[in-house]
Amino acid sequence: MASMDLAHLVQDGGKIVLFVWDGLGGIQAGPNDVTELQAARTPNADRLITAGCGGLLEPVYPGVTPGSGPGHLGLFGYDPLEYQIGRGALEAVGVGFDFRHGDVAARLNFCTLDKAGHVADRRAGRIPTEESKQVVAKLADAIREVDGVEVHWAPVKEHRALMVFRGEGLGDRLEDTDPQATGVPPLDVRTRDGLAETARTAEVARKVLAKARDVLADEPKANMILARGFAKRPHWPGMKERFGVRAAVVAGTPMYRGVAKLVGMEELPATNEVEKDVQSLAKAWDDYDFFFLHYKHTDKAGEDGDFDAKVHYIEEADAALPAVEQLGPDVLTVTADHSTPSAMKAHSFHPVPVLLSAKTARRDTVTEFNEVACAAGGLGLRPSMHLMPLALGHAGRLAKFGA
Amino acid sequence: MASMDLAHLVQDGGKIVLFVWDGLGGIQAGPNDVTELQAARTPNADRLITAGCGGLLEPVYPGVTPGSGPGHLGLFGYDPLEYQIGRGALEAVGVGFDFRHGDVAARLNFCTLDKAGHVADRRAGRIPTEESKQVVAKLADAIREVDGVEVHWAPVKEHRALMVFRGEGLGDRLEDTDPQATGVPPLDVRTRDGLAETARTAEVARKVLAKARDVLADEPKANMILARGFAKRPHWPGMKERFGVRAAVVAGTPMYRGVAKLVGMEELPATNEVEKDVQSLAKAWDDYDFFFLHYKHTDKAGEDGDFDAKVHYIEEADAALPAVEQLGPDVLTVTADHSTPSAMKAHSFHPVPVLLSAKTARRDTVTEFNEVACAAGGLGLRPSMHLMPLALGHAGRLAKFGA
Repeated sequence: MASMDLAHLVQDGGKIVLFVWDGLGGIQAGPNDVTELQAARTPNADRLITAGCGGLLEPVYPGVTPGSGPGHLGLFGYDPLEYQIGRGALEAVGVGFDFRHGDVAARLNFCTLDKAGHVADRRAGRIPTEESKQVVAKLADAIREVDGVEVHWAPVKEHRALMVFRGEGLGDRLEDTDPQATGVPPLDVRTRDGLAETARTAEVARKVLAKARDVLADEPKANMILARGFAKRPHWPGMKERFGVRAAVVAGTPMYRGVAKLVGMEELPATNEVEKDVQSLAKAWDDYDFFFLHYKHTDKAGEDGDFDAKVHYIEEADAALPAVEQLGPDVLTVTADHSTPSAMKAHSFHPVPVLLSAKTARRDTVTEFNEVACAAGGLGLRPSMHLMPLALGHAGRLAKFGA
Repeated sequence: MASMDLAHLVQDGGKIVLFVWDGLGGIQAGPNDVTELQAARTPNADRLITAGCGGLLEPVYPGVTPGSGPGHLGLFGYDPLEYQIGRGALEAVGVGFDFRHGDVAARLNFCTLDKAGHVADRRAGRIPTEESKQVVAKLADAIREVDGVEVHWAPVKEHRALMVFRGEGLGDRLEDTDPQATGVPPLDVRTRDGLAETARTAEVARKVLAKARDVLADEPKANMILARGFAKRPHWPGMKERFGVRAAVVAGTPMYRGVAKLVGMEELPATNEVEKDVQSLAKAWDDYDFFFLHYKHTDKAGEDGDFDAKVHYIEEADAALPAVEQLGPDVLTVTADHSTPSAMKAHSFHPVPVLLSAKTARRDTVTEFNEVACAAGGLGLRPSMHLMPLALGHAGRLAKFGA
């Protein structure tokens, strides 16, 4: 089934909430040999899926492990294979930087170089955010322009930062300088194509990185930067244009806000405390048709390999559901951008469970919200990018196709 | 999964019957909170699916509600997103009009204009077919040619009629004149592109509609026409060419015959009385490889919001199954073009249940023919356009692909 352009079918309809429990899916592990979601008590999700329907979503492609960007784009109805974006662009939008078309952003890691100039620590001892901010300020003060190209800097979190070049005729087809290993020097800024704009931008980057090394020479830990994911801001049609919805994001972590804003969502206040975040959604309830509510902690626990913590956070997210229901969404979906099994301590390719609650839902036999029960659900196993059209359909937002 | 060209694989094989219970799928409703199909006693379909296999079909795209044309095209193995057709063309073929390539057809509604020229009733009080025929005859007598373009007229049913322009260099990129509202005048004939042939055809249409208003001025109810769905006959490869089958349609309602004939099916006598329609199929049994048998009443009951009537008609269709089985089809499939839940009184986007009965079927666990049971079926959840290749495969009509 090819991807369908729905723009000519969109009409007014009900409100939709997409509640993402990041990294929700798991595999069986632990003493009881169950997934985190099977182990968790989720009375609210179980109630919703009993009256609604369930299924499994495959974020990008069978067997392919999604990054956070592609994982979310699929849920927003954007085919991740068609809508690709570099990490730098995602970070730039996510931290609220005024990221303009034509700018080239890169994500930075502060790192520690030894005396031989080899990378000793790729994350500079995970320096705290406060320290990182000071080092970024030093860079921002010292390096503002190179070869007529403006250089902007912004701190992110811990050892991470953002660098943005602004000028005419820049290219973003540059390789990472992070060698992904210690004991070797940072990589040169290599180009991926033969265009003059790429070569020019690589030269700017080389000069900036050399200056940064001088500026940071006295730092005990963060004495160099590694650049990754050079990228421009993509030109994408927004959710209003494609799906006819005024969309808003409540996400306490910059990256998720970033990807949401790339598809035209407006940003609402967020804290990563789920009760407060639901209140943020409540305050803006009348102003939007579609709400993306992001819950981060499940993914973090999965990446930490902490089965019990993931169970705990799943239960915390479940407990927030009644407050979301009270707002009266016409369609409420709960799912994930990807699986993060604590047994794997990483994102994985496994499909994610999804529940869809709506008056127009066709009830299936599923009475528990978990990966195994959802495999028998009425929504079937399908690409994540099908969730958005399904939500629109259940909300009465798509007109009949053809006579 | 991209659509596959099967033409080079086709070979002789068994006979296939596609029995469409129009609008079959539902959602839970009524005192027992079940779908119409769950409520109905369907001993024959249950027996067939127990020995065969079941699944769910998604007609056009997730969340998208199909019209009758796209819904059926999917079942015939034609991707509805690739094979699109205007309502006028569908109606022209459906009423048996000699609709030629180059002709432009429009579907007409008789309507009632008030003294101010505003639409008072978009359906002219749903005048009976007999009255409509007389009014159409009046138009056909008075308006035969405009600017060198032949104008043909045909009655359809109740307040509906057909208008066809025939001449060189006509275009069909014209908007509807039906304002879809009362208290406003009919819309002008607007064009969707800047081509000269479109502009010329719009001018012809304007003159025809102005003349029609004069001709109908004295009619008490049907004193004007509204035109919708201007369309030419599409150039499509037929089922013989694509799938190697001589195909026939038994459908008592013009629209379904129409769409079947667009893919090369030949028309057999039909009444919308299912027992007689099965006999029609029996009489032509030796002459075709593929039979499309259409059953309309289930959809009508769903659109009327009549749960009990839909249950009744499902049972009537089920009772007709033994007579179809007696013909000895190698593959018998029962499914629908789309769902029409009586709770929604309209077509819906919900997947439709399908059963496939064949000696070559792999039995699954499904023992009841309904939407919920079929979600666990061996055929899975898939696009409707996959049913035709599955039927061909089960009928031994597709050769091995590759060595």
